[in-house]
Amino acid sequence: MIQYNFKDDYSEGAHPSLLQALASANLKQQFRGYGKDEYCDEAIKIIRNKIGNQDIDIHFASSGTQANLVIISSILRPYESVISANTGHINLHEAGATEAIGHKINAVETKNGKLTPENIKPIIDFHEDEHMVKPRLVYISNSTELGSIYSKKELEELSVFCKGNNLYIYLDGARLGSALTAQQNDLTLHDISKLVDIFYIGGTKNGALLGEAIVINNNLLKENFRFYLKQRGALLAKSMVLGIQFSELFKDDLFFELGKHANVMASKLAVGIKNLHGEFLIEPVSNQIFPIFPNKLIEKLSEEYGFYVWEKVDDENSAVRLVTSWATKEEFIDKFISDLESDMTLR
Amino acid sequence: MIQYNFKDDYSEGAHPSLLQALASANLKQQFRGYGKDEYCDEAIKIIRNKIGNQDIDIHFASSGTQANLVIISSILRPYESVISANTGHINLHEAGATEAIGHKINAVETKNGKLTPENIKPIIDFHEDEHMVKPRLVYISNSTELGSIYSKKELEELSVFCKGNNLYIYLDGARLGSALTAQQNDLTLHDISKLVDIFYIGGTKNGALLGEAIVINNNLLKENFRFYLKQRGALLAKSMVLGIQFSELFKDDLFFELGKHANVMASKLAVGIKNLHGEFLIEPVSNQIFPIFPNKLIEKLSEEYGFYVWEKVDDENSAVRLVTSWATKEEFIDKFISDLESDMTLR
Amino acid sequence: MIQYNFKDDYSEGAHPSLLQALASANLKQQFRGYGKDEYCDEAIKIIRNKIGNQDIDIHFASSGTQANLVIISSILRPYESVISANTGHINLHEAGATEAIGHKINAVETKNGKLTPENIKPIIDFHEDEHMVKPRLVYISNSTELGSIYSKKELEELSVFCKGNNLYIYLDGARLGSALTAQQNDLTLHDISKLVDIFYIGGTKNGALLGEAIVINNNLLKENFRFYLKQRGALLAKSMVLGIQFSELFKDDLFFELGKHANVMASKLAVGIKNLHGEFLIEPVSNQIFPIFPNKLIEKLSEEYGFYVWEKVDDENSAVRLVTSWATKEEFIDKFISDLESDMTLR
Amino acid sequence: MIQYNFKDDYSEGAHPSLLQALASANLKQQFRGYGKDEYCDEAIKIIRNKIGNQDIDIHFASSGTQANLVIISSILRPYESVISANTGHINLHEAGATEAIGHKINAVETKNGKLTPENIKPIIDFHEDEHMVKPRLVYISNSTELGSIYSKKELEELSVFCKGNNLYIYLDGARLGSALTAQQNDLTLHDISKLVDIFYIGGTKNGALLGEAIVINNNLLKENFRFYLKQRGALLAKSMVLGIQFSELFKDDLFFELGKHANVMASKLAVGIKNLHGEFLIEPVSNQIFPIFPNKLIEKLSEEYGFYVWEKVDDENSAVRLVTSWATKEEFIDKFISDLESDMTLR
Repeated sequence: MIQYNFKDDYSEGAHPSLLQALASANLKQQFRGYGKDEYCDEAIKIIRNKIGNQDIDIHFASSGTQANLVIISSILRPYESVISANTGHINLHEAGATEAIGHKINAVETKNGKLTPENIKPIIDFHEDEHMVKPRLVYISNSTELGSIYSKKELEELSVFCKGNNLYIYLDGARLGSALTAQQNDLTLHDISKLVDIFYIGGTKNGALLGEAIVINNNLLKENFRFYLKQRGALLAKSMVLGIQFSELFKDDLFFELGKHANVMASKLAVGIKNLHGEFLIEPVSNQIFPIFPNKLIEKLSEEYGFYVWEKVDDENSAVRLVTSWATKEEFIDKFISDLESDMTLR
Repeated sequence: MIQYNFKDDYSEGAHPSLLQALASANLKQQFRGYGKDEYCDEAIKIIRNKIGNQDIDIHFASSGTQANLVIISSILRPYESVISANTGHINLHEAGATEAIGHKINAVETKNGKLTPENIKPIIDFHEDEHMVKPRLVYISNSTELGSIYSKKELEELSVFCKGNNLYIYLDGARLGSALTAQQNDLTLHDISKLVDIFYIGGTKNGALLGEAIVINNNLLKENFRFYLKQRGALLAKSMVLGIQFSELFKDDLFFELGKHANVMASKLAVGIKNLHGEFLIEPVSNQIFPIFPNKLIEKLSEEYGFYVWEKVDDENSAVRLVTSWATKEEFIDKFISDLESDMTLR
Repeated sequence: MIQYNFKDDYSEGAHPSLLQALASANLKQQFRGYGKDEYCDEAIKIIRNKIGNQDIDIHFASSGTQANLVIISSILRPYESVISANTGHINLHEAGATEAIGHKINAVETKNGKLTPENIKPIIDFHEDEHMVKPRLVYISNSTELGSIYSKKELEELSVFCKGNNLYIYLDGARLGSALTAQQNDLTLHDISKLVDIFYIGGTKNGALLGEAIVINNNLLKENFRFYLKQRGALLAKSMVLGIQFSELFKDDLFFELGKHANVMASKLAVGIKNLHGEFLIEPVSNQIFPIFPNKLIEKLSEEYGFYVWEKVDDENSAVRLVTSWATKEEFIDKFISDLESDMTLR
Repeated sequence: MIQYNFKDDYSEGAHPSLLQALASANLKQQFRGYGKDEYCDEAIKIIRNKIGNQDIDIHFASSGTQANLVIISSILRPYESVISANTGHINLHEAGATEAIGHKINAVETKNGKLTPENIKPIIDFHEDEHMVKPRLVYISNSTELGSIYSKKELEELSVFCKGNNLYIYLDGARLGSALTAQQNDLTLHDISKLVDIFYIGGTKNGALLGEAIVINNNLLKENFRFYLKQRGALLAKSMVLGIQFSELFKDDLFFELGKHANVMASKLAVGIKNLHGEFLIEPVSNQIFPIFPNKLIEKLSEEYGFYVWEKVDDENSAVRLVTSWATKEEFIDKFISDLESDMTLR
């Protein structure tokens, strides 16, 4: 029987403060809907202050896929395409949402899920005339689908490259909480709000019941954005459910504390595995880690733990993905390491 | 200053039991996401039982526009169109969501927002070859955007007509709670689950924080439905937020009680207006009523009450829309009627 | 047996000079394709000179529906809609092509197929926020689907209104040859190139085997237009087949002579019908006329002539559509009138 | 100055017999349009007989990109994707036409532009649930974009694999004339009409002014196909222009003779290059060949000949693409080889 699930970071409910805030506000008064209520206004004010940037527009959406499709739809003209790491969420795990709104994804092979001027440039060079799509947007995620994060220098270089090549840059922050509180991180929300044209701050994977906050930096992308939200079904009638949660996450530092907890748990897991001489597909940095285990060990572990087998490494070993969350309990980390130690003798 | 808002039925939070249920379940355990969790399973079981139909598929979506676009996308081939009353939500108030997924709406002029074999037939007859779209789906809402409801006989006739003309029929139940508890109503959820191919039961406008339950009756429409949900961003990661609320609404009769309250309030409002010799654009039946007031009176009322001016009736009078909800307090009905009485002397 | 077909203006091949020009050019040399060949360059030069406007961009497409969908796709953002007479080709006879590329058509009821500031304004006023589409383009056809034409004054007023209301204006010139040579016409190609943002000059219905010339006046619509052509399959590899025909149509005045012939034939037909006391659904102006005949007469006529029954006028009479073309032979006009005279005794 | 252009196989006009046939038919009679004329009927009869299969449906389109987008649109539901070699025309050279109609392309790396059960299977295995698209169609081209062709055995294996994996198979025959007359070819039109669900026979690249004949084998794909043609602007009003040309191509064996000529010219070119010890990126088979030349030689050759530089091979050498056509004159092949011989001394 499965004791604990390391499959993802959305297997638990909401942080209790968020539910408490929802309950406190409930039925106190009538409010306007569709993103124009007082709670959303308050959340926008709080987020702007936390970011330290008053020139940004903020909107809320219910899910990450929704945020992605609304944002991409609002940026690209029909013949324009979006560049993504081939491991990017939009490329693999959105059932073709980007193509369903009409756009090609130019998928780039990467070492660690990160885009760089070097791995983007060949795409730009290759697309030279109207017989091909025109790449116009760079989609990155931070942290990436492989758990890696962007350094400030990397994001600056990418930003400069994009500006110089007439490319917009969009950062999918489904796991931004974990990225910004990783030990190696040197980026801030403020930096991001200056370096990319648009991004979203993920609530769902960082303590909210649901909800993502879309932040628009580039003025060209601000106008008429609510039309896109409405047209794609992303404007919630009772939008206060999103506003209240985001106020709670950002009025103090809850958002960062939750991200940090996930990282600390992941780090403890990684250290434990390393101590047992385990290796990794990619160096662990944030709340998704990818240890390489013998297939027999994987079979044994999967009797008690939930996780995804990520990819075959060789005939006898595979990488698995272990994800921790804001709610992961330390006891299960300890238990996993201890079980791992026992099971390793099985090799 | 606005004392009370009769603008819509989503200006209040959730019924306290639903929030309580969310709080109780929170952090009790880990759960699976994307509609495959135990809470959704439970809600599906409960709804199936309440409907008295085990042959239906049930899925959850976050908003009505989202439900509409996912459902229409799942039914129509690219050259097929959907017939709707010209007052239909998909035709007017979804920012072109239906067209954005590629489909034409054949809008039908109606007296009261309802479709009938008589007003649909000319559309069918008119579309005769491949130079035109092929109407393939009939979209109705119950209650309609004008507050009217379908009788069992009307829905049966429409159902027979659609079957005989190779048309699917889809019922948008954003306000189904109010429709099914209206005094004149003789339809049941069971009837609907037999008479239409697909429908949704609205949570947002009947006591939930958010959420609509999509019910699929026609087997041809069941397969692969989750792909459409995912592709359009409608699969919530923490889908338990929807499952828990719908279980609460349907485990007893809360769903119907909330709908009934809205109707009782609307009815009291209508009777009060009639007593003051007020007339209506359309006979009041459910929780949306459309009294006709002198423009001067409207101006005066709008100082204290929120509502939409629906349409001009003549140079001196207009119809307004007053909407009550599950949370409407009787005192504001009384106050409105009393104010109306005083203001009427202004005429 | 059908002696003659008045169904449309594309039931004959090409004007012999065009075929001759194709034959002369054939195999003389290799040429570049996809609209970048010498023949297209030459045609563009000739058309620019004939229009008397060097600031326009010109592209070629194979069919009217293709031109319409490429143009509309190039102008509108996803949430924007196009206003059209409800009789407009895009609204009725393109199998939902406009919706298939994602855009709603706001259909306007008109008396004669023509749009005016007066019948457009209510559409603009009605669409006020992001819950609705945003009308952004006005689609007109000249001549219209009812055979009526725009006067210079009418087009000027429409143009001023559109500029003042942030609306683009696009003229579908499938039958521009007939429109510009109608007796009542006072518009020129030059006028049109100044008064609308984009239009196309129809070849298919005015002597060409196939082909429409898209003319872009508004600089904002010029950039990247070839991407739209390519993406929708409208760039012909051997584009010289379009260039050569348009050079032939415009190097002298063939385009106008062909249009005029169609009008003269239609006019003779109309006069003949009027002489027999026939009435019309709409006053005949160009090469499509809509006489009202008794149903019995229609039945009799349809044994020898091809035409469409347009609409029921009353229980005993219907309007039919008679179309003449650049190739219509006068003898069949005479024959039709003479047959009509004999058949009328049948009433 | 460019003496001769080996850039493509659409740089010349039409075979004179086709133009002659168009001229002979012109103005002889009125005809029906939009694919329902006598000439299209006749062409369909002729092609059916030539294929030796009476159970196929045949339609005509103007261009290859148009045929591709109409066909793909008619097969796939919104969440379904199409598998293509990464070199496939739909993947690279149609400005995102497939995505613009809503579908993802699963691009497969191949050695020679050909798909096989082996290189398709990982795609099928990888896509396992509704978070991903569902691959449903296999797109192949014959000859491929690299000039390679499918053997009967290869196509049979692919066909069996597709049937076994619930995949449709579509063959883009833009260059089918060359493929079926290649020396190594053992496939017939009849074979293809049995082994794939749908394909098109390219006219534009094999002697026609324009035009592709779409052949539907699978009954499931036949119904309502004309709606797709109309909706995408692919139904020509004067469709006889396509019917007449295809009758001419297939009433005898002109289609095959033209394809063969192109191959013979390409083969002579390839032999000449081999005799000069030239090497190839991929073994020459049909009318597109890809010799590898030193960059300096390429520069010199490009002063007199038109061709595309295909890809860099190493720092000093690149592959170029040389294409011959039904109209290529032998003298230019001789001249090219002779120039090559002289220029090679330049190395």
